[in-house]
Amino acid sequence: MVKFLLCFIFISNVSAQELFTDQYLEKVSTLRDSALTNSLAYDITESLTTEVGSRLGGSKGDALAVEWAVAKFKELGFDKVWTEPVTFPKWVRGVETAEVLSPYPHEIKITALGGSLSTPKKGIKGEIVHFKTIQELQDADASLVKGKITFISNRMQRYKNGKGYGMANGARYMTAKITAEKGGIGAIIRSIGTDSNRDPHTGAMKSGNRDPDTGKITLLNKHEIVPAGAISNPDADLLVNMLKRNKPIIFKFTLGSHWDGEYTSQNVIGEITGKTKPNEVVVIGGHLDSWDLATGALDDASGCGITMAAAKLIKDAGIQPRRTIRVVLWANEENGLFGARAYAKAHKDEMNQHIIGGESDFGASTIYAFSSNVANEALPVIAKIAELLQPLNIGYTGNNGRSGADISPLKKAGMATFGMAQDGTNYFDLHHTPDDTMDKIAPEEIAQNVAAWIVFVALAAEYKGDFGFGLNQ
Amino acid sequence: MVKFLLCFIFISNVSAQELFTDQYLEKVSTLRDSALTNSLAYDITESLTTEVGSRLGGSKGDALAVEWAVAKFKELGFDKVWTEPVTFPKWVRGVETAEVLSPYPHEIKITALGGSLSTPKKGIKGEIVHFKTIQELQDADASLVKGKITFISNRMQRYKNGKGYGMANGARYMTAKITAEKGGIGAIIRSIGTDSNRDPHTGAMKSGNRDPDTGKITLLNKHEIVPAGAISNPDADLLVNMLKRNKPIIFKFTLGSHWDGEYTSQNVIGEITGKTKPNEVVVIGGHLDSWDLATGALDDASGCGITMAAAKLIKDAGIQPRRTIRVVLWANEENGLFGARAYAKAHKDEMNQHIIGGESDFGASTIYAFSSNVANEALPVIAKIAELLQPLNIGYTGNNGRSGADISPLKKAGMATFGMAQDGTNYFDLHHTPDDTMDKIAPEEIAQNVAAWIVFVALAAEYKGDFGFGLNQ
Repeated sequence: MVKFLLCFIFISNVSAQELFTDQYLEKVSTLRDSALTNSLAYDITESLTTEVGSRLGGSKGDALAVEWAVAKFKELGFDKVWTEPVTFPKWVRGVETAEVLSPYPHEIKITALGGSLSTPKKGIKGEIVHFKTIQELQDADASLVKGKITFISNRMQRYKNGKGYGMANGARYMTAKITAEKGGIGAIIRSIGTDSNRDPHTGAMKSGNRDPDTGKITLLNKHEIVPAGAISNPDADLLVNMLKRNKPIIFKFTLGSHWDGEYTSQNVIGEITGKTKPNEVVVIGGHLDSWDLATGALDDASGCGITMAAAKLIKDAGIQPRRTIRVVLWANEENGLFGARAYAKAHKDEMNQHIIGGESDFGASTIYAFSSNVANEALPVIAKIAELLQPLNIGYTGNNGRSGADISPLKKAGMATFGMAQDGTNYFDLHHTPDDTMDKIAPEEIAQNVAAWIVFVALAAEYKGDFGFGLNQ
Repeated sequence: MVKFLLCFIFISNVSAQELFTDQYLEKVSTLRDSALTNSLAYDITESLTTEVGSRLGGSKGDALAVEWAVAKFKELGFDKVWTEPVTFPKWVRGVETAEVLSPYPHEIKITALGGSLSTPKKGIKGEIVHFKTIQELQDADASLVKGKITFISNRMQRYKNGKGYGMANGARYMTAKITAEKGGIGAIIRSIGTDSNRDPHTGAMKSGNRDPDTGKITLLNKHEIVPAGAISNPDADLLVNMLKRNKPIIFKFTLGSHWDGEYTSQNVIGEITGKTKPNEVVVIGGHLDSWDLATGALDDASGCGITMAAAKLIKDAGIQPRRTIRVVLWANEENGLFGARAYAKAHKDEMNQHIIGGESDFGASTIYAFSSNVANEALPVIAKIAELLQPLNIGYTGNNGRSGADISPLKKAGMATFGMAQDGTNYFDLHHTPDDTMDKIAPEEIAQNVAAWIVFVALAAEYKGDFGFGLNQ
């Protein structure tokens, strides 16, 4: 177990003792403990992954998932259930093939990066030019790249908190654009992942420009980005070994991915109405969409399951906090955070009623820490939450933490936030691959997540004061 | 470290001290120790997997591998290098698609079992009938199976010695035939593997009958076997979860695999000639072919690398044992043990000059034990070998062990055998999948294998006496 320094600055006159009644804290603690053996989050996640499966924004699975979510919220007895439209450019995957033609013929597994344009039908053929990092490509003379297929071989590193992802994923986001700028004809990257399986990791690349005022996307054209795919760690290793032989490597790949008009999906929202302040909401949730390569158990069916279960169990326990608990299942997070942006836009006039929020979007492994972004005045309630989370082996890492991609537009609009840190040691073995499936979820670990969310949400929704609107703007 | 009882029965008059000169034992021990940091086996394996890659019997890769092996033996300075023809029916993989059509549409990853016939072009569509084991299918009334697609969901168990494979792979071998006998239209099995990746494990199924006298194969026709494929553990779990909902599951799959005439490949053989008994041979090796889904690093490029390196390092150290060390790289082990059978047939008149033999065909993890199948008279030399293997943390498990599939025809023909037991804990995560690649091999582990093979081979080839021809017949 990791040990944490619990260090709070009490500048408010409110002492922790006065924040909640003993009876309320007792109820929450009892529910926390019983949640540890409750299977609801697991069952919801199993239901979404089995009965719907993959659900890329704009796909048939997306539409099925919206139906599933509305039905599931109702079945669980949420007080209000509704949907809000989310419109985005629809991207579809097509044929995906790759091979080394010479000096040593090999079939290579490739997957298009989200937003990649298609190659010509007969594919793109060219010599590989190798860069160890995106920075090396950025610094390279265009003459080295012109007419070639760029290959970035940097390998993502494994960390418990997942920080290797941010260190590596610039290659996924920018290689296609930088390659086009330097006259290259195609791009492949080593998957942003920590596993050693042959299935590459997909994920979004830069494929459009967003108007900062209207939010409208202008998609990049084939002169601005080259077709781009990811290859697996073992296949990247193979190319690196081949490059050591100092012979030109002729590579060919075909991608059928392309944009296909606009699509309107839905954010699906369920609420447990607050007892005395129904218009003030604690916003939690996960994103309902997934990549198309798997059933998206960890990314992010489990986040939907954890937060739906937490709200449902609070309701069933008769805890009835003052404020409303709103569970938002965001649409199309993966290919541009469209659901989160649409929600922030649609609710901009009631933003100051969004008291605090957090998203579960990092799998279903055990939570080992939590963080907040709240005003100093609210730190006593955070301290009380920390006290109730300690029996779950969850420490507090400070008032400056992450809270999930879909929360970021709300944070920018002024909402206070919190984050639950799950053990991410193995998360990037599976992230955005065909291996993101239900068998990866341990019932006792996802239940521990629910117990933690119950504590945070039940106390935040009951707390009389504010968490500090506007502090993150 | 596992502890072993070293228990030998000395019924010969030869004491261990008289078997080898001190100088000889000193040389072998020195070479054993230096081999632990030698990269030759790793380099050979890297060369075969990088410069050739996958090499299914009858494929372009098969022909390239034969060229590679002849050139590599010569480059390493083996005293004799030659090839011997191996003819077999050529099987080719084709298109592979599968999906659940209802009640919950899902794409499923499927791979044809080796020897499977193709489906019609539009695929096979039918209701799934689920059996937990091959025995349940065998015991089932034909009326349950008629017109349906059988699904065997038994999961292979993980063991250090790999014994879960033998316990599980009857499903792979027999499901297509039993399904056809009961009027089924297709068969899918849970992969025979211990991993949780989405790529299924291929492997041979019963696809022909062999004439016991001539060895000639008569292939089974479409009335005798149904098209059959493996699905991954996660997809098998998904089907099992779906089946719990008690709705008929309509499944569709397409396989393009088929037989395509005969092909003649080659066993590739390299020898280090014995000093005083050149016609007596210690036979070692691995199989040169691999499945087509990966570069076959563990199955069995590493076995080729380990045994080629052991013989080469013995030669380079100037040890010069009395007998010849023959390294055989067998053709088409995977789809019917054709190279091994052809070798046994071609050499049947000199079988009694095959003093002892063993194959490396279980990956490249650390060897933790060895075994023998020799006459009691030869146990003192086995005891001496055990003494020299002990510094490598290798124990002796007895005079009744396994020695590799390609050795079995020679064992049947009377040859004494030995076996090196590698740690197989993770082997069946990778076996027969796209993940069987070079990055899975640890340089220090494959080097430890070479050190162990050097000890066994150098002492067996120097030993004056016999290991007991005919005892295994």
